[in-house]
Amino acid sequence: MVPRILIIGGVAAGPAAAARLKRLRPDSDVTLFEQGEHISYGTCSMPYFLGGDPERAEDLIHFTPEQFSKEKGCSVRIRHRVERVIPVRQRILVRNLDADEVEELRYDTLLFATGARSREVSHPPAENIFTLRTLSDAKRIHHWMTNSSPQRILIVGGGFVGMELAEAMSRRALDVTVIHRDDLPVNQAEPEIRAIVLDELRRKGVRFVGGATPVRWDVTNSRVGSVETTTGRMETDMVLLATGFVPNSELARDARIRCGSRGGIVVDAKMRTNVEHIYAAGACAEVRHLVSQKHVFHPLAQTANLMGRIAAANMAGESEELDGILGTSAVKIFDLQVASVGLTHRDALNHGIDAASSTVSSRSRGRDDRDSKPLFAKLVYHRRTRRLLGAHLVGEEGAALRVNTMATAVAKQMTVEELARIDMMYTPPFAPLWDPLTIAARQAK
Amino acid sequence: MVPRILIIGGVAAGPAAAARLKRLRPDSDVTLFEQGEHISYGTCSMPYFLGGDPERAEDLIHFTPEQFSKEKGCSVRIRHRVERVIPVRQRILVRNLDADEVEELRYDTLLFATGARSREVSHPPAENIFTLRTLSDAKRIHHWMTNSSPQRILIVGGGFVGMELAEAMSRRALDVTVIHRDDLPVNQAEPEIRAIVLDELRRKGVRFVGGATPVRWDVTNSRVGSVETTTGRMETDMVLLATGFVPNSELARDARIRCGSRGGIVVDAKMRTNVEHIYAAGACAEVRHLVSQKHVFHPLAQTANLMGRIAAANMAGESEELDGILGTSAVKIFDLQVASVGLTHRDALNHGIDAASSTVSSRSRGRDDRDSKPLFAKLVYHRRTRRLLGAHLVGEEGAALRVNTMATAVAKQMTVEELARIDMMYTPPFAPLWDPLTIAARQAK
Repeated sequence: MVPRILIIGGVAAGPAAAARLKRLRPDSDVTLFEQGEHISYGTCSMPYFLGGDPERAEDLIHFTPEQFSKEKGCSVRIRHRVERVIPVRQRILVRNLDADEVEELRYDTLLFATGARSREVSHPPAENIFTLRTLSDAKRIHHWMTNSSPQRILIVGGGFVGMELAEAMSRRALDVTVIHRDDLPVNQAEPEIRAIVLDELRRKGVRFVGGATPVRWDVTNSRVGSVETTTGRMETDMVLLATGFVPNSELARDARIRCGSRGGIVVDAKMRTNVEHIYAAGACAEVRHLVSQKHVFHPLAQTANLMGRIAAANMAGESEELDGILGTSAVKIFDLQVASVGLTHRDALNHGIDAASSTVSSRSRGRDDRDSKPLFAKLVYHRRTRRLLGAHLVGEEGAALRVNTMATAVAKQMTVEELARIDMMYTPPFAPLWDPLTIAARQAK
Repeated sequence: MVPRILIIGGVAAGPAAAARLKRLRPDSDVTLFEQGEHISYGTCSMPYFLGGDPERAEDLIHFTPEQFSKEKGCSVRIRHRVERVIPVRQRILVRNLDADEVEELRYDTLLFATGARSREVSHPPAENIFTLRTLSDAKRIHHWMTNSSPQRILIVGGGFVGMELAEAMSRRALDVTVIHRDDLPVNQAEPEIRAIVLDELRRKGVRFVGGATPVRWDVTNSRVGSVETTTGRMETDMVLLATGFVPNSELARDARIRCGSRGGIVVDAKMRTNVEHIYAAGACAEVRHLVSQKHVFHPLAQTANLMGRIAAANMAGESEELDGILGTSAVKIFDLQVASVGLTHRDALNHGIDAASSTVSSRSRGRDDRDSKPLFAKLVYHRRTRRLLGAHLVGEEGAALRVNTMATAVAKQMTVEELARIDMMYTPPFAPLWDPLTIAARQAK
């Protein structure tokens, strides 16, 4: 009998799982449901699209529903919202949003790949207040900006997405203000790195207002014209809310699927939920962190895709496990590369780990190279075992790729002493004689 | 009693050892002998100086003899050539080249840091045939070119230094020809990478003549005007010989210090030679390769400096060992980054290892990023144990730093399967969703 596999969610983990399932089990019957209009697109590229490069929203789409269906051999149903999952009967109820009809469908195996949504900020209705989560959101913002030619933008939230949006809007020559609840941006980063990011914002002409949250929205003719914040009133032509993400796990919760403390669906290393025949992958699920061994909510694209791949293998009857993730990430903030892997010093202390750290302010190239740039690195390690727990870098070049080296070191539970002895490359145009990671590791001694 | 430490050679390993010795044992009496005029300079930057950036030879000098002496607390004697080592009496004979006087000096501990010299190519005397090994060589070439304004240059040898020189001379708008004994340049590299380097040379207007060696030199008025090669005659205004390096080990050999099959002084993991109280470090010595466990001759700057540091620790009475090197290197060849770590597939087979390899032609950035560049990667691994043995990359961006990730993986004896599972960063401006290393590792499955 042909196994019938249903996948809820078509952005990242969903299509990754669907495509791999059909590769592993060409005989299976796979259907992908997406409530929006687009599937399989690059959410991480949306800020760049808003900044003007790439120019067309279509450039972000990897596969249209038709292409995906044809090339991967799956059924794709966009504008279909799954409204209920009934595990005991192995059924779902799905609404065709255009026809406004509900259908009941049976599954052999079901995958939740419902992703995350923007955290809500309460505000009155206004046509110029936006969040950015889907490609439709991106198109809507782009369209509104093209028609309304705003001069000033207020970005609420100074996290990594807020920073990417600040850069994108600066590229469009807007007057950009970021308000943020804390004094420094990007709360997940190490304090030294947060200070460097703030400097970069200022150097690029972005107004950053720390310790500020919205209190009152002044809306006239369906448009917000100014926002009263905890630190004062700010006039603006549009508002972008970038206050983080929450997992879309309500549908699962309603079906009595176990969710965790971070709000996401709890899965094991094979992406199985606690309910038979039901898997979850991507930002709707919590995932085990390799260092802390705790479940975390890290809505990262490569993690979502990886979870989708692993879910697919297990749904196809093979056996594949996710050891755990390291939250390896790199973000471009104007001229800076801000990169991170594993735990920050504070994360580690919060987990009750006796952590120490070592920092170095080095350079990206050899001493004679005039294009060399400052590069800051911080290593976090266990004080007693000397094992590496995380690494955090910032600089105009050489920060992003160095986190992959550290991901490898952290995954292999290397000590700082072992790291100090790794034979790293040197040539003046690409690295200093002693790599910044080597220096930081030596200084940890 | 104050220990008396003598160090022969002042370019890389020598100063690195001298400085660390004084840090570890401030009471010791350290003297550095250098037969040339300069100590402590960036040999790797010499091609860039010849290319015009940095502009001054002095920019390559880390410490003048006076600065080094003052800041590090060592005696420095330039223009002093050590002519004999008498281990049984713990003495050296050293000639002051300016005064033409020989002095006999006692040592408690002696370090050979005599480096390597350019491999000799027989040719008649001519003022416009050069080799590049010391800063004095670089100044001589620079001075001659400034005075004689050559239009055409012939570079003999298409190894990595030949490539760096070809780029440097192209920057000076010279008409550059490289002749090389093999059909493809950079013999140490993987064949796929050699072909890509050849394409790059051609794209940049460098004439590369493979299968060619010099046969006869036509010298008129002390200048070579053309060279007869195995593939024909080539007219030129100057010649740069870049046919590789050989260790300066004769002085050690004369003192009955054991040398190896590659011509270098044999040292153990503590940089000790087979003769008591005598150490060696840098390009004059052979060093153990971490993967092959064979002694190799790898005249790389970071390796020389590292060996100097380790020798210093042991000479100071501490205990420090070099696990082995990986030959991690990156070279800039015009717009390309050519990077390598560990064994090539052919190296591995030559060592009798049952090696396999996996290649990927990927990109440096996310699919939507218009500045993304091609990136080629090859992984070499043991067929049975699946352990990584080496990695080799080439591309306009992202190749150099990825070898550090692979150096970490190879040093930790990771398998391709483990590498495939490392959580690597993704963001469109810095990397594709699946890192090229991840893809290559998956394809090895």
